Amino acid sequence: MPTDPFREPSTTLVVLDLLGIFVFAISGALVGVRKGYDVFGLVVLGGTTGLGGGFLRDVLIGAVPPAALADWRYLLVPVAAGLVAFVFHPALGRMEPTINIFDAFGLSLFCVAGALKALDYGLGPLPAALMGMVTGIGGGIARDLLAGRVPVVFRGELYATPALAGAAVAVVGTRADLPGSLVAVAGAAVCLVWRLLAVWRDWQAPMPRGPASV
Amino acid sequence: MPTDPFREPSTTLVVLDLLGIFVFAISGALVGVRKGYDVFGLVVLGGTTGLGGGFLRDVLIGAVPPAALADWRYLLVPVAAGLVAFVFHPALGRMEPTINIFDAFGLSLFCVAGALKALDYGLGPLPAALMGMVTGIGGGIARDLLAGRVPVVFRGELYATPALAGAAVAVVGTRADLPGSLVAVAGAAVCLVWRLLAVWRDWQAPMPRGPASV
Amino acid sequence: MPTDPFREPSTTLVVLDLLGIFVFAISGALVGVRKGYDVFGLVVLGGTTGLGGGFLRDVLIGAVPPAALADWRYLLVPVAAGLVAFVFHPALGRMEPTINIFDAFGLSLFCVAGALKALDYGLGPLPAALMGMVTGIGGGIARDLLAGRVPVVFRGELYATPALAGAAVAVVGTRADLPGSLVAVAGAAVCLVWRLLAVWRDWQAPMPRGPASV
Repeated sequence: MPTDPFREPSTTLVVLDLLGIFVFAISGALVGVRKGYDVFGLVVLGGTTGLGGGFLRDVLIGAVPPAALADWRYLLVPVAAGLVAFVFHPALGRMEPTINIFDAFGLSLFCVAGALKALDYGLGPLPAALMGMVTGIGGGIARDLLAGRVPVVFRGELYATPALAGAAVAVVGTRADLPGSLVAVAGAAVCLVWRLLAVWRDWQAPMPRGPASV
Repeated sequence: MPTDPFREPSTTLVVLDLLGIFVFAISGALVGVRKGYDVFGLVVLGGTTGLGGGFLRDVLIGAVPPAALADWRYLLVPVAAGLVAFVFHPALGRMEPTINIFDAFGLSLFCVAGALKALDYGLGPLPAALMGMVTGIGGGIARDLLAGRVPVVFRGELYATPALAGAAVAVVGTRADLPGSLVAVAGAAVCLVWRLLAVWRDWQAPMPRGPASV
Repeated sequence: MPTDPFREPSTTLVVLDLLGIFVFAISGALVGVRKGYDVFGLVVLGGTTGLGGGFLRDVLIGAVPPAALADWRYLLVPVAAGLVAFVFHPALGRMEPTINIFDAFGLSLFCVAGALKALDYGLGPLPAALMGMVTGIGGGIARDLLAGRVPVVFRGELYATPALAGAAVAVVGTRADLPGSLVAVAGAAVCLVWRLLAVWRDWQAPMPRGPASV
């Protein structure tokens, strides 16, 4: 097994990581409120949203058990998020534009961390960038599947593309032997700026033209 | 790889385990009948319901290939359940209250077995209890996803909480070095009694209050 | 880890494999067009359809990271298929009968390759045949889940049975020490002929009789 730089990361990174999980978990729990889930459903849906992308990446690259199962903080944060959403969902719903910004931070962090971890486990550049994207968008896809709705990431919103771009920057920078912190910041910044511009300017991905065959 | 006490378990445990899988598979196949699935769909949906929770646990804790793929009995039982449901579904549908009781036995067994296996693979107490719950509820969630309906476990029914409680009892008992058989019986009993009381008294989990934001 | 004959397969096999992935990815992307997905959604849905079955098999048998993550060609083919569907979906939709034939070739190849790989990783005959079927039908199931529709494989169409039969032939032939190429061709032929007959003669799997209980 390779050395895992995420087993003993800096306090800053852990705080950012937990914050990303918390924000993702809030978004998942709010979907659950709208679907009429009970308090337990909110916690599970929030936890799946916050941890699902990392779990999927870890299972695919062979890093099992996933890091989140080896650190109780990663399990308590989604529980806290689910309970917060259970109690404060009306206020949180009104804060949704703000939450979208936090969500963009989470996405930026996850895509870079996912790509670097995949590189660390021996994957090539292209699959590593893909795993970065999977880390960023996997939780949201799992959330939508469990909530019985088509994953929003596929429907015109620019969400996965910034994650793939940020992961690609991190991979290319690492391969070019640039300093690790620079690589991480550059990758996250590309994803963050792109995603926030997409939210604020309402950018849409191209849709297929012409009538769909039946 | 750790020694796996479930590779050569006692005959009693194997019979109970196969019975749990059979009951879960019947519940899955009955959902398939209502959704208009063909005989093959019933077998696959039943098999996924019976084996899905254990597969998910095994993939997450790194116990691959899952035990069910190393023992043909674990594969034939869901096939048998699917065929039984194919032929006898009208009678089985009328027996549903009885099936709910068997299902509670299956849940009790699965949550304890899942938690103990996770401990055996080196997971900490909190993740091990979580894996026990995943073993118990994972098959039903997979069933509902494949059947195109929102997982019932999230909607007010007390189903996952008893599984988590039973798994937690098994984990705490094991950590306290109590005898293995006592631990297993105590964990399963907690889950079973709680679940049956929830069914008979129609206990509901708390729902979020107030209107959901849109 | 066992030696993996699919790491350095013959050029013919690679071409057939990539062709199968391409055809499956096209079928996935066409579903995405009908669901109103953007160009990125088409690529992801196509990629999941083309690679999902192999990923599921590899995760279950412990062959991680999956072979497709170690070879950039396996990642670029679904991207190409998604873009082709994005541009040419009206023409492709009219070609659907032809695509069904290509799809049957893909299914035949995948079920045999999946079963042989599972044998190579030490699984017994029954689980190996099952893994062959999973390789063949897993991508289509993932496609339907992500597209928010009930998996078509469960609804009367004879699709999984030919895959299981082809995988079983490959497993039995390998156990009987027949030459590898003969085994592969025989298994694929059984699956292909059965599937094409099912398409052309509109064979249906048996449905449960009588009213479903509510």
